Amino acid sequence: MGSIDTNPTAFAAFGDDTSFQPLNADDVRSYLHKSVDFIYDYYKSVESLPVLPSVEPGYLRRQLQSVPPTSSAPFDIAMKEVREAVVPGMTHWASPNFFAFFPSTNSAAAIAGDLIASAMNTVGFTWQANPAATEMEVLALDWLAQLLCLPAGFMNRTAAGRGTGGGVILGTTSEAMLVTLVSARDAALRRIGSDGVAGITKLAVYAADQTHSTFFKACRLAGFDPANIKSIPTGADTDYGLDPEKLLEIMKADVAAGLVPTYICATVGTTSSNAVDPVGAIADVAAMFNAWVHIDAAYAGSACICPEFRHHLDGVERVDSISMSPHKWLMTCLDCTCLWVRDAHRLTDSLETNPEYLKNDATDSGAVTDLKDMQVGVGRRFRGLKLWMVMRTYGAAKLQEHIRSDVAMAKMFEDDVRADDRFEVVVPRNFALVCFRIKPQGAMTEQDADKANHELMERLNRTGKAYLAHTAIGGKFVLRFAVGSSLQEERHVRSAWELIKKTTSEIIKGEK
Amino acid sequence: MGSIDTNPTAFAAFGDDTSFQPLNADDVRSYLHKSVDFIYDYYKSVESLPVLPSVEPGYLRRQLQSVPPTSSAPFDIAMKEVREAVVPGMTHWASPNFFAFFPSTNSAAAIAGDLIASAMNTVGFTWQANPAATEMEVLALDWLAQLLCLPAGFMNRTAAGRGTGGGVILGTTSEAMLVTLVSARDAALRRIGSDGVAGITKLAVYAADQTHSTFFKACRLAGFDPANIKSIPTGADTDYGLDPEKLLEIMKADVAAGLVPTYICATVGTTSSNAVDPVGAIADVAAMFNAWVHIDAAYAGSACICPEFRHHLDGVERVDSISMSPHKWLMTCLDCTCLWVRDAHRLTDSLETNPEYLKNDATDSGAVTDLKDMQVGVGRRFRGLKLWMVMRTYGAAKLQEHIRSDVAMAKMFEDDVRADDRFEVVVPRNFALVCFRIKPQGAMTEQDADKANHELMERLNRTGKAYLAHTAIGGKFVLRFAVGSSLQEERHVRSAWELIKKTTSEIIKGEK
Repeated sequence: MGSIDTNPTAFAAFGDDTSFQPLNADDVRSYLHKSVDFIYDYYKSVESLPVLPSVEPGYLRRQLQSVPPTSSAPFDIAMKEVREAVVPGMTHWASPNFFAFFPSTNSAAAIAGDLIASAMNTVGFTWQANPAATEMEVLALDWLAQLLCLPAGFMNRTAAGRGTGGGVILGTTSEAMLVTLVSARDAALRRIGSDGVAGITKLAVYAADQTHSTFFKACRLAGFDPANIKSIPTGADTDYGLDPEKLLEIMKADVAAGLVPTYICATVGTTSSNAVDPVGAIADVAAMFNAWVHIDAAYAGSACICPEFRHHLDGVERVDSISMSPHKWLMTCLDCTCLWVRDAHRLTDSLETNPEYLKNDATDSGAVTDLKDMQVGVGRRFRGLKLWMVMRTYGAAKLQEHIRSDVAMAKMFEDDVRADDRFEVVVPRNFALVCFRIKPQGAMTEQDADKANHELMERLNRTGKAYLAHTAIGGKFVLRFAVGSSLQEERHVRSAWELIKKTTSEIIKGEK
Repeated sequence: MGSIDTNPTAFAAFGDDTSFQPLNADDVRSYLHKSVDFIYDYYKSVESLPVLPSVEPGYLRRQLQSVPPTSSAPFDIAMKEVREAVVPGMTHWASPNFFAFFPSTNSAAAIAGDLIASAMNTVGFTWQANPAATEMEVLALDWLAQLLCLPAGFMNRTAAGRGTGGGVILGTTSEAMLVTLVSARDAALRRIGSDGVAGITKLAVYAADQTHSTFFKACRLAGFDPANIKSIPTGADTDYGLDPEKLLEIMKADVAAGLVPTYICATVGTTSSNAVDPVGAIADVAAMFNAWVHIDAAYAGSACICPEFRHHLDGVERVDSISMSPHKWLMTCLDCTCLWVRDAHRLTDSLETNPEYLKNDATDSGAVTDLKDMQVGVGRRFRGLKLWMVMRTYGAAKLQEHIRSDVAMAKMFEDDVRADDRFEVVVPRNFALVCFRIKPQGAMTEQDADKANHELMERLNRTGKAYLAHTAIGGKFVLRFAVGSSLQEERHVRSAWELIKKTTSEIIKGEK
């Protein structure tokens, strides 16, 4: 991880004699050069580090001082502690041996864009507070909308001029869900002529039981009644996608019981197993009830820049909003979730604020977008820069190549699993996630198989040579093998598969 | 802004012949070195750039291509467009001539920490997903709690072991308000035995009319009834701080009317004028109703690391939660809002999720904190690193020096304003914000004075040599002069004052 400088250079403008200049350009350059060296070494060595650390809770406090220092210290001291105390306790998402959750993909262009944003450190809550940041964010969203072939109605600006739609970059999918839920809630309350929020007990929201848990949390945050947050059971018959007929049936029964269907969340690529809810059919059902449809394509949305995957979004022209997270699979470091809505006013009606201290002529003119009115908070980083830099530098063709390469590696792994009759692939692979398990064999019961799979995961993760997470599908314990960490190559997938086979043999033979 | 490389070097591992490696260490280093050069030039030259740009809405799209490129391009092309199209359209928060809003202070250590976080790109939703990130965040919060002399009850871990309190780093104050509002809401619903959320129409929340508009928005997001979101009038008699007697009176009347006081937001350093609500007296009133008290010290909280300002937090030992944003005044680039709660379980009761795919032994053991359960979303950047690096590198003494230097410059400006009888300081200066205006003189009415002040602001901002924002206090148009941009020195404050005096003379003389 690089050598530690035991004789750190003095601060350029930071001592007892001079005034404190925390942003002195020479210090900034010096600290950043040291950080770049660290990052270079980190990427060169991360493959050899245990993906999952073996530290115990509280380990860091035992290595670092528990009280804040009074005196300043050379930056090298902080870097030394990062190398010696932080790195050994990290779960290395950047490791090519990381196959857990979904990868947090990244790129040189994104990191550079994020660095420049950190240094500029603007707070673009209104257009006036940073015109370039607002316009670049809007431009980046319109570019990405084009790569995804979203309908023009979702764009901020089309060839025909300013549209009614709009986009915003948020921190997480959860925030995208929350702000659209609140907008749908307020619209429904107005529609039913609610006295204040009294009608909220009548509003119902819907999603498949495979929908990310954060959706159900966002519904609670927005004040929906827990009894009216409907989790619709799915099964193997639909590959765990939402059944629109079941949705229709439940919504009809709810209306008969006096409820008001308000919002449906459709997922394209669930976290658990990459199931895909049928967007178009869901939109058709929703239209019968005037309910808001949101598409959560956090992970798989990125794949939809390739024509061969785009069909998963068919019907998007009939939904109200869609979000996806380039920080998952579009090589843009955290945090970057893109939300598009068909009618931006439906968001701003609920989210606009207009305090005196933010009033300005540009806002008053109505000619600009103030992005604070499409999010929870006021303050906001210049997040558009990194997303734009990724598209500007790599271009659509390379981005598609990146998706296809990950999918090809996942298919290779899937083929290997299918070719070994000790294993089963539990659900069809839609993108770059393979859900598989040791299947019951010999005298094994289903329960034994669950135990064996759990044991397999634990043993693999303890080696430090691979990190896999799990899920439950149809009541079974299933391993998730998510391909796509940005430093990953075919050889890493092959090594992981060899390790899985070897460890499985040991488990089946009863070896410790 | 540095020269543009017209003969860009080839990509190290990024061409038509080789596979696409977006995170190739050599490319990362090369892009980051170019970015560091850009940042160095930017800091060296930002003083001479117009603080507020004069671009028209839509300017950026006219300069950059409106469709995403298909082919890749050298990184230098993106950098060239940043220099030539982005920089001229920016509002330069890093400029030493920026006096608007509150400064977004920054430092070499923070930018370095943020860069490393972007490169590591971990998603520490659970402890297991990145033990080092979780532990460093918790440690940084405990360090900062000590600098602020917060009661041990707010700390994650004290000398006596693991506490019941806890902290989390969020993106914005708005999110801190939202998650505590939801927790207080749910606790109140349970207390009154509400059937689901039916009781929500009875819950009332309170804040002074000077409270940031985002509080009232957060209340609406959480589903509180607009009629029960009480904005309590303030006036010059309390320097625009909340009057606890008025609060008591309103809460008593609400209880008599069948409402349930649920939450009070007290601000230490309002955005408009830096008013301070009396924390202790508010906590005493709240205790009579079992209402949650939150302190929003987004800006002024940083000053409370100095003993001479700490009294503004007196009574904090009797509140439920407090948030402050090091991205405002503690030299930590966006985004970084710290939230502490006295009983972490009150947050997690409302915010915990436990999907199968995130289950792990560490969580099951109960020995660790999973920070996803204290925020809106699931995903999270490694934000603790930059905050820890700032404290580790500069130490408490330098951080205090930084606050005191800003306050001293603000006092110098205030003294200048007071010494010129054409002006008035509208409210007492508590920190580093001076609220002042041209006062009515000669034949000027109050309305004329408002116009003159508006004209003064517009003229100043058009020069590009200073950027000031305004507010309304007691119905008057008031200029806000916020000192503390990280590159700011005494000479910038003096120059701005000279410009203000000169421009005021011109306005009073009726010159264009």
